[in-house]
Amino acid sequence: MDLNADLGESFGRWTLGDDEALLGVVTSANVACGFHAGDPRVLRESCVNAARQGVAIGAQVGYRDLAGFGRRFVDVPPAELTDDVVYQIGALSGFARIAGSRVSYVKPHGALYNAIVRHEAQAAAVVRAVSLYDSDLAVLGLPGSRFLELAEQAGLRVVREVFADRAYTPEGTLVPRSQPAAVLEDPERIARRCVAVARGEGVEAVDGSRVQVHGDSICVHGDSPGAVEVARRVRQQLDGAGVTLRPFVQQGPA
Amino acid sequence: MDLNADLGESFGRWTLGDDEALLGVVTSANVACGFHAGDPRVLRESCVNAARQGVAIGAQVGYRDLAGFGRRFVDVPPAELTDDVVYQIGALSGFARIAGSRVSYVKPHGALYNAIVRHEAQAAAVVRAVSLYDSDLAVLGLPGSRFLELAEQAGLRVVREVFADRAYTPEGTLVPRSQPAAVLEDPERIARRCVAVARGEGVEAVDGSRVQVHGDSICVHGDSPGAVEVARRVRQQLDGAGVTLRPFVQQGPA
Amino acid sequence: MDLNADLGESFGRWTLGDDEALLGVVTSANVACGFHAGDPRVLRESCVNAARQGVAIGAQVGYRDLAGFGRRFVDVPPAELTDDVVYQIGALSGFARIAGSRVSYVKPHGALYNAIVRHEAQAAAVVRAVSLYDSDLAVLGLPGSRFLELAEQAGLRVVREVFADRAYTPEGTLVPRSQPAAVLEDPERIARRCVAVARGEGVEAVDGSRVQVHGDSICVHGDSPGAVEVARRVRQQLDGAGVTLRPFVQQGPA
Amino acid sequence: MDLNADLGESFGRWTLGDDEALLGVVTSANVACGFHAGDPRVLRESCVNAARQGVAIGAQVGYRDLAGFGRRFVDVPPAELTDDVVYQIGALSGFARIAGSRVSYVKPHGALYNAIVRHEAQAAAVVRAVSLYDSDLAVLGLPGSRFLELAEQAGLRVVREVFADRAYTPEGTLVPRSQPAAVLEDPERIARRCVAVARGEGVEAVDGSRVQVHGDSICVHGDSPGAVEVARRVRQQLDGAGVTLRPFVQQGPA
Repeated sequence: MDLNADLGESFGRWTLGDDEALLGVVTSANVACGFHAGDPRVLRESCVNAARQGVAIGAQVGYRDLAGFGRRFVDVPPAELTDDVVYQIGALSGFARIAGSRVSYVKPHGALYNAIVRHEAQAAAVVRAVSLYDSDLAVLGLPGSRFLELAEQAGLRVVREVFADRAYTPEGTLVPRSQPAAVLEDPERIARRCVAVARGEGVEAVDGSRVQVHGDSICVHGDSPGAVEVARRVRQQLDGAGVTLRPFVQQGPA
Repeated sequence: MDLNADLGESFGRWTLGDDEALLGVVTSANVACGFHAGDPRVLRESCVNAARQGVAIGAQVGYRDLAGFGRRFVDVPPAELTDDVVYQIGALSGFARIAGSRVSYVKPHGALYNAIVRHEAQAAAVVRAVSLYDSDLAVLGLPGSRFLELAEQAGLRVVREVFADRAYTPEGTLVPRSQPAAVLEDPERIARRCVAVARGEGVEAVDGSRVQVHGDSICVHGDSPGAVEVARRVRQQLDGAGVTLRPFVQQGPA
Repeated sequence: MDLNADLGESFGRWTLGDDEALLGVVTSANVACGFHAGDPRVLRESCVNAARQGVAIGAQVGYRDLAGFGRRFVDVPPAELTDDVVYQIGALSGFARIAGSRVSYVKPHGALYNAIVRHEAQAAAVVRAVSLYDSDLAVLGLPGSRFLELAEQAGLRVVREVFADRAYTPEGTLVPRSQPAAVLEDPERIARRCVAVARGEGVEAVDGSRVQVHGDSICVHGDSPGAVEVARRVRQQLDGAGVTLRPFVQQGPA
Repeated sequence: MDLNADLGESFGRWTLGDDEALLGVVTSANVACGFHAGDPRVLRESCVNAARQGVAIGAQVGYRDLAGFGRRFVDVPPAELTDDVVYQIGALSGFARIAGSRVSYVKPHGALYNAIVRHEAQAAAVVRAVSLYDSDLAVLGLPGSRFLELAEQAGLRVVREVFADRAYTPEGTLVPRSQPAAVLEDPERIARRCVAVARGEGVEAVDGSRVQVHGDSICVHGDSPGAVEVARRVRQQLDGAGVTLRPFVQQGPA
């Protein structure tokens, strides 16, 4: 099992998240690439620190929208979106390279992540960018999303993501954030369900039934003090349960 | 001898320069990387077209200043400047790669180009970025600049640039733009002196004396209809004089 | 009748449109405010030149998207969109003020213009921004759009726009750009139909029938040499036909 | 005596400073305008909250440099700098207006603040912007700076700033930050010297001598928890000492 988290989301004078703490917890770091967050200094530090700790580096690609942190859908024409994603992977790759590592996967961020669950043209545009840049890159995304389907058809390695702190429906999909019980907050409960997922035991759905949730990587957060605590607890429980945590991709220079 | 020009300086809805015409003239293209000009679409098109015509691709790196087109000195701390340059080289490299080519040199742009003629810390910062990213990259700059001196000391391949349309002092330095005769405008005269430089015959200085001007690459411009005409004339005269024009670096995938 | 056009859409080193020519043609100038086009220098020059020629100044407000020129829908939350629009009107107002004039109307641009034909929440957000800033401002938009309906309900002065170069359906709506005959190109024909609209004679629809098109302002373009020619022809024909052209708002300092 | 602090320096997803706490302490708020910090939502909230608490609103104008937070000198040509400053004042004025207040002064930020202590052309450019926009605006700056001298010559109201937490030389100038004792940290000591300045008693210089420091406004900081504590302590001591704190300008709608 792999643990991933968003990193490198600071920008200039503005700090966001406790990257140092997270790098002690996760096995894969989704590093922002400068379009919705992250600046060159942050990218370098993220790559250097990730490489030092043996954490895999992924390109957290997003819409060109610093003011909106990539959380607003932008109706970018597909060809331009492909170019935007190639640009971001390339920029991050430079820093991964000088850190003695490499970008090994791509995870879309925020509104782009959500859009390509269903938005055929944008999903295809991201897949095309990854395939063009390096077809050995893996993609990390939502199971059942159009994005992962198209990536698989394109021959890319597909990594399915499970959310540690989100409630699931009996059908195994995420309970929408608009609903009251959508987000779990008890660290113990979150950590326990991560162990269950890792063991293939599934999770308790919102209606109390048991549902299988298949995933290759568990997403944890680090953008609040509480979130880092949850992430640490998840790691401890997984370690304690004997679950082997490692990046879904081999690390090291390209 | 090599002929270089700035390309890829359009941005979004705004077009600048006649890139297509220039690619028929030059042997090396300094492609803007998005910090002072250029967007991902423009970078891709520039790389694809340059690769198709066997033109070498260089990273035209600059200050992060779209509003000022990189023409305003920015007092960036050296460590941040290094990161900014790595980011830009990396971003362009992604497009060179998908175009089946590679970035083979770095040419600083505008105010950065001018600053590092003498600004020790920023010159060293750019050299450090290039060395970190790939010490096989060449750097293109002003003969006698602190930048080229430091690059040489760092073991980088140094390419000296001659300006086709600038007047020279009897000492072989550029006549400052603030002086009336600083810029040549007659295409024939410009083209003839390019031939003279290529043959090692030197040029006529502003005082009428003969001065040696050593260079490995002649810089032409393309940001006005007149400039493109000059560039074409330079190319014709060099071809006609039997001067072999080729990139100062070998092209092809990395 | 009023003639309006987009102005002030240059940015930094990049020039777009022939603003000088347009200011000799139109009675109202939609000046970009820096979010999708325009920089402070351009805003000042546009306001100074418009004021000098007695041309009314309108705020051409758009999404925060320089790279996309405001032509891509951005799903901005309504409250933020209201703030974005207030910011843009305020910024332009400063320059109108130092030019001895004032901003007298607001015209949304590009994807925002199109979105608020139907997007209730964003239409309301723009209306709210205008009402908050100054309820004496007029709004310029598409007849029948949700934007104009809400603006009218909010007590704002509403100005209906007719497009000089667009084909109309028998129902009086615009033929979508995706259809072949959507855009007219013959300057004479475009000019003649402007005269017809000004005289209340309606226009010939795509099926050859006559359709009434009510409007208070005719939109002309200036972002290509051909467009400026059309704009001039429209002006000449309207002048020749004895149509009185004047801004739909009184000009002068606030 | 007036107490001023920088506010509104958050941007998008990134929060900076405890604006709420500061608004309970200061009498004048220097609100960032979007060029180096601040976005439209932040500007609105800052103006609304300042107006509600009777705190004067000043335009914290800076270089167009989000990535550098306005802390890097940018060699902007003076005419463009004037336009940049007008733009920022105008943008903030819109929000002050809808908050029922107005911008009553201008305080340059960061590298611009420092540059115009001596940089004649940029100092004159800022003065020109303020004079053009509204010659009733006051300017807040460093006593003895070229900026305040030129502002005074231009007939602007000049407000001299004292720094609560900076050491002074026997000549009454600031000890450069590069020197060890440049910044005071003990809240009690900082608060006591504020009282002394307010009473016209001068402060103890770094060499132990007494030096007169004339000022109309004391600058406090709020970008760290410790800073807010210092600001609160300064306010308490000044209140306790019977010093009347009020904005140096009258508040209320324009």
